[in-house]
Amino acid sequence: MPLSHTASGDVQHVPFDDLRGTLARIFERHGTSAEVAAVLAHNCASAERDGAHSHGVFRIPGYLSTLASGWVDGHAVPRVEDVAPGYLAVDAGNGFAQPAYRAAYSALVAKARANGVALLAIRNSHHFAALWPDVEPLADDGLVALALVNSMACVVPSGGTTALFGTNPIAFAAPRAGHEPLVFDLATSAIAHGDVQIAAREGRLLPDGHGVDRHGQPTNDPRAILDGGALLPFGGVHSSYKGSALSMMVELLAAALTGGNFSFEFDWSAHPGAQTPWTGELIITIDPAKSAGRSFAQRCEDLVQAMAAAGQTRQPGERRYRQRARSLKDGIPLPATTWAELQRLADGPI
Amino acid sequence: MPLSHTASGDVQHVPFDDLRGTLARIFERHGTSAEVAAVLAHNCASAERDGAHSHGVFRIPGYLSTLASGWVDGHAVPRVEDVAPGYLAVDAGNGFAQPAYRAAYSALVAKARANGVALLAIRNSHHFAALWPDVEPLADDGLVALALVNSMACVVPSGGTTALFGTNPIAFAAPRAGHEPLVFDLATSAIAHGDVQIAAREGRLLPDGHGVDRHGQPTNDPRAILDGGALLPFGGVHSSYKGSALSMMVELLAAALTGGNFSFEFDWSAHPGAQTPWTGELIITIDPAKSAGRSFAQRCEDLVQAMAAAGQTRQPGERRYRQRARSLKDGIPLPATTWAELQRLADGPI
Repeated sequence: MPLSHTASGDVQHVPFDDLRGTLARIFERHGTSAEVAAVLAHNCASAERDGAHSHGVFRIPGYLSTLASGWVDGHAVPRVEDVAPGYLAVDAGNGFAQPAYRAAYSALVAKARANGVALLAIRNSHHFAALWPDVEPLADDGLVALALVNSMACVVPSGGTTALFGTNPIAFAAPRAGHEPLVFDLATSAIAHGDVQIAAREGRLLPDGHGVDRHGQPTNDPRAILDGGALLPFGGVHSSYKGSALSMMVELLAAALTGGNFSFEFDWSAHPGAQTPWTGELIITIDPAKSAGRSFAQRCEDLVQAMAAAGQTRQPGERRYRQRARSLKDGIPLPATTWAELQRLADGPI
Repeated sequence: MPLSHTASGDVQHVPFDDLRGTLARIFERHGTSAEVAAVLAHNCASAERDGAHSHGVFRIPGYLSTLASGWVDGHAVPRVEDVAPGYLAVDAGNGFAQPAYRAAYSALVAKARANGVALLAIRNSHHFAALWPDVEPLADDGLVALALVNSMACVVPSGGTTALFGTNPIAFAAPRAGHEPLVFDLATSAIAHGDVQIAAREGRLLPDGHGVDRHGQPTNDPRAILDGGALLPFGGVHSSYKGSALSMMVELLAAALTGGNFSFEFDWSAHPGAQTPWTGELIITIDPAKSAGRSFAQRCEDLVQAMAAAGQTRQPGERRYRQRARSLKDGIPLPATTWAELQRLADGPI
């Protein structure tokens, strides 16, 4: 399915609402409820809008093959549980994490404002998207947010030889006076699986500290990583134990604490075509209006100014905001073949 | 002052309570209240007991010169503020962070149990110790804990040329069924300042990705780092932007949120001898009894077993526990000259 952003040929500029609407029709037509379709379509169109192509329309085939496999329930209705004054849980019912999050969002914000801090523990959920869309809205609402999600076993623990952890990203967002929120979203693996595949295709070797072969030995050969090997945690040759510790923390908070699966626990072999990890997600959010001293958002802006003065030319999240502004002004650039294929998936003959 | 752990000569094995008592007398004699002395002595003796020498008695001269300089108030009485059901703040009153934490500890635990999650924001505080002692007790009490503290400008942000962040550690602890808690404590810098000094003394070059010279250019020469240069965030040559993002998060949570100073903001030039960073600290703690599904501590143990099966031979914190057991059985090994000097500082002629 030619849903690449980088396909050659004509480029079309698609308004955000058109892309979102088309994606929603695709999801609903391929096995989700209208509610789930709306949430996933917004998420996926937002990634494409912001130039986060690896989580944009590129993911649609994976979503559809997963839905077709019966691995995930596109009609799941999340069940929100009010566990304690600062603690919400959601059983996603073997559905996607994003609708589960959506169902609890307002309650989470209210709890954070009332208690100063609140957390949302999502379990029995599938997360196949970028993580920054889960924290940015909280910062838009004036809150500080930290999100962690585990995924599927493809990373060896530091010193180990067998894949156990997922790429296990950590995302963070903070309100910034006079600007879009400060947001980062980083995998705790040294490299993304997609980048290993690209290197293999191009015949490039990888730098040290990125992966191991099927025997657990360090390798620079991307094909050896793909052929039964695994990724290393980030940190470089000398500090991958740090990335490994953070990845372990993600497993504990996103899976053990929520009641979800560890990245190595689920077995999708009975569902050929399944691609979505069935795990959990934790979101912690803090109300900085409770801070002592000057406005948190102003302090955040002070720090950004200081980082710029120290020579950091690009702040976390900045590239996304720039692409977002362009997309909202001119439309989202998509290869014409990709846009045609999306429209066919949405409205054409099955 | 010969307070090295590695001084040559005879080694004496000192019972924990003897070392703690001696350190308490040293602190009180050199400018702290009895309450502050007891907390700092316990902290410092615990680090020495666990083989964490860089935060053990090695730090005593730094504590004393800082107290003598008037930079920190050894008699400060922390003021605990009950900000919201899940939010405690402490104004440490320009004193040390550990007594401030101690003053709020029981209330923090109670809030976490009542609300599911709680945080403690310490400001106007000096942290000169390891960070793991701040999270381990919470895990001993059955809670999950995350602590962040910023320090003093010695790390360049990713892509930058001037030191801005501190070594900004992150510590995490989780209860583990049938075992001591799982604990890690990692600096977000590529290397500790002390290790750069050791490399310079030994004439060794550092690996790539550890530091920059006074012009902000990458260097392998530890002397160039010490001579007006700075450390890099951890992550290695290809991912130091990730360590940088985490270090930025520590600045925002430990300083901006608490109302403390950023690592680059305080000026101790009027206090020669001062060594303790005057910043803030954030502790987030979660009650895993609120978890869905199986016992969190059992799930934690399951993960540790899986990490061992994947070939990870040493779990985070394990080395400390092993040394702790030895120290409690045989006494804490100290060079006889160091122990004599500590006794002199405590009880000898001034």
